[in-house]
Amino acid sequence: MRTITKDLSQHAGQSVTVEGWLHKKRLLGGLTFINIRDRGGLVQAVIKDKNEVEKLRGLQIGTVLRAQGTAVDEPRAPGGIELHDVTLEVLVPVTHEPPVEIDKPLSHKSENLDTLFDNRVVGLRNLQEQDIFRLRAGVVQGIRAFLQAQDFVEIQTPKLVAGAAEGGTEVFKLDYFGQEASLAQSPQLYKQMMVGVFERVFEIGPAFRAELSATTRHVSEVTMLDIEMGFVHGHEEVLNMVQDMVYDVLTKTYDQFADQLKRLNAPQLTLKPTFPRYTVARIHELYTKATGRDTTREKDLTPDEEKWICEYARTNDGCEAVYATGFPKEVHKFYQQLNPDDDGETILSADLLFRGVEIATCPLREHHYDKLIEQMKAKGVDPDHPGFSHYLLAFKHGLPPHGGCGFGIDRFVEKIVGLGNIKEAILFPRDINRLAP
Amino acid sequence: MRTITKDLSQHAGQSVTVEGWLHKKRLLGGLTFINIRDRGGLVQAVIKDKNEVEKLRGLQIGTVLRAQGTAVDEPRAPGGIELHDVTLEVLVPVTHEPPVEIDKPLSHKSENLDTLFDNRVVGLRNLQEQDIFRLRAGVVQGIRAFLQAQDFVEIQTPKLVAGAAEGGTEVFKLDYFGQEASLAQSPQLYKQMMVGVFERVFEIGPAFRAELSATTRHVSEVTMLDIEMGFVHGHEEVLNMVQDMVYDVLTKTYDQFADQLKRLNAPQLTLKPTFPRYTVARIHELYTKATGRDTTREKDLTPDEEKWICEYARTNDGCEAVYATGFPKEVHKFYQQLNPDDDGETILSADLLFRGVEIATCPLREHHYDKLIEQMKAKGVDPDHPGFSHYLLAFKHGLPPHGGCGFGIDRFVEKIVGLGNIKEAILFPRDINRLAP
Repeated sequence: MRTITKDLSQHAGQSVTVEGWLHKKRLLGGLTFINIRDRGGLVQAVIKDKNEVEKLRGLQIGTVLRAQGTAVDEPRAPGGIELHDVTLEVLVPVTHEPPVEIDKPLSHKSENLDTLFDNRVVGLRNLQEQDIFRLRAGVVQGIRAFLQAQDFVEIQTPKLVAGAAEGGTEVFKLDYFGQEASLAQSPQLYKQMMVGVFERVFEIGPAFRAELSATTRHVSEVTMLDIEMGFVHGHEEVLNMVQDMVYDVLTKTYDQFADQLKRLNAPQLTLKPTFPRYTVARIHELYTKATGRDTTREKDLTPDEEKWICEYARTNDGCEAVYATGFPKEVHKFYQQLNPDDDGETILSADLLFRGVEIATCPLREHHYDKLIEQMKAKGVDPDHPGFSHYLLAFKHGLPPHGGCGFGIDRFVEKIVGLGNIKEAILFPRDINRLAP
Repeated sequence: MRTITKDLSQHAGQSVTVEGWLHKKRLLGGLTFINIRDRGGLVQAVIKDKNEVEKLRGLQIGTVLRAQGTAVDEPRAPGGIELHDVTLEVLVPVTHEPPVEIDKPLSHKSENLDTLFDNRVVGLRNLQEQDIFRLRAGVVQGIRAFLQAQDFVEIQTPKLVAGAAEGGTEVFKLDYFGQEASLAQSPQLYKQMMVGVFERVFEIGPAFRAELSATTRHVSEVTMLDIEMGFVHGHEEVLNMVQDMVYDVLTKTYDQFADQLKRLNAPQLTLKPTFPRYTVARIHELYTKATGRDTTREKDLTPDEEKWICEYARTNDGCEAVYATGFPKEVHKFYQQLNPDDDGETILSADLLFRGVEIATCPLREHHYDKLIEQMKAKGVDPDHPGFSHYLLAFKHGLPPHGGCGFGIDRFVEKIVGLGNIKEAILFPRDINRLAP
């Protein structure tokens, strides 16, 4: 009967069997100390018997072992317990030296990304690398739990689509039985259609963008959270829902993964239940005043302003999550609602910024069929294009006021952990240069 | 303040505001009865006031309404409560007649599938259609809850891949910045690599197959559950894990969605905690004897045998989920383990059959690096192909005995509900003829 290492402390003084990988080996004062890794963590085994030590001759880190011995309290050992009087059985011998050292503290900042990803399948065996992805799984499940409790229905929409919904050139195209298909850049149109059915829907899934840029912020396949909710009474209701979700998930993640975040040297969390809101115009003004670099004629926020306002809000509002609101009509997309209170000079959309980057865009949609058609035409989008026929059908037969967000899971995890690159928050990232592993 | 219809019974005698869609309208004895639908279901409103009735003139099903009135207990009304003294406000008028009737009992069997999917965004507003997808969301979440409790880590692996992992011709190809990429047919190789990191992983996501067949069982984009677990002590441990998950999810789904399953005329559940196991040879023998159609020379199971053995097990074992085991080596894939107990005449793989179809394939993997290479060569698969370099790296540096399953979520939901076609269990199905909506 196998015992998982994290449960060993319940078996102090007993004979136990552990199965895992040889994670580290060293000689000390005539004794051989080995660390065995399993899904629960590490345990140290002390081997005196020469016959047992002999079994490891020529074997490398990664060798799969079964170790039977006595669990002994030992405050100096990792986990407070170690194995004595050990009998080893080699389940799978490994004779090749590992291409990267896995038992060292993670310092991605100094790491060459190509080395990191070329050796990904071995490098992930590092316990801190694992922490990132266990935390990621926790974040994803935390988001689902929050949304399910708010009556959101989880949906799966197709990634093979006929047209590129939101336009743009960054679309992967492929041959679909003789037709041209593209890979979905987002479930935007589908989730809006589903408001007419379930009112509140969400999806967590892949989205594809043929990004030509090779930066720390761009990959060609991302994991997106898409949320859409109907019967909202104003834009604030959408912003509050996303804010409450983010607050709930962040505070719970910092609680549940406190040890992992400490090991990863993640930043401390500075958060308030109500995120500060600043208009784009106000950010331009504050930034220009503070830095002397004039951005007041910019339409959108510059990347440096996104960084700056998060830092500003952390210092002045005690909250490193911020909403930027009041985007000017120049960045308007046809399905977004213009602000009736300023004659459509701004859009009812907000960006959620966290630790210097945009995590989510949260617009209110235009829900009136006639007005939507009008906005499409004004933007040069053809409402008669077959790719829009089902979308428009949903509006024709009644969609309530609605809004939602597209939320980048990878970027969110990157920023929670404090990584330097979005790719480090993805198991197997894809960019213009990388299609493997 | 809006009240959701399912909560109305808590407000009997009080003034309430409901927001939703006009779902049905009829005149009876000089009164106008309307049903309003929201995410909680339906409520009936009785309108006497001619001014209020007038507001609905010319408006169609789908019109978005706010109704303020008094909640009154009424055992004959749906939900046991109705609205009296109603004041209406039209939020979004709909003047187009719906293309399909949404307030009728679902009878997919007689439905033309093209009509169904051409009008999908409106047709899904039918309450029973919604039931299918609420149940689907419940099944997916039930699977996650089971696996998370068993220490499985949820992962997301890329859908854009360099080569077609399992070979085969049914692969969608696309241009990836000048390289040829394909869409992942399954996360097979990735989940095996991740056994070396987390021991136990799962993923729920899209998988793509360029299926040329237009049958009730084929679509080109499916939602797959992929499970992989390491340190297993024999094939039975894999089969038991999948069996326990299916038993847990089915029994909970039949409990949680009892009303919906009843409304959908779903079959009664006949299940035992331990699923019967039959070898392929034994199924051939039993089937041949029972039907007079000789299948004893077949290697694989025929579709009719899959149906037959489920019915046989339901009657004889009181369980409509069955494992077919002992597949002959002729259907062997390179990454599967041959049975050492019969000199490799059979594979250590089993198909989970439920209500007549294969839901999952559950093999034990070959985990020895040298033997895997040998099996690749024997199958004509080139181990030096760059698409396998990272996969093989994981084995070279130690993978424990492991196994798992690929599990079709769409097909599982289809069979739970008792639908006639896998497409009816998918919001927006894709097949050789259909790329929209």
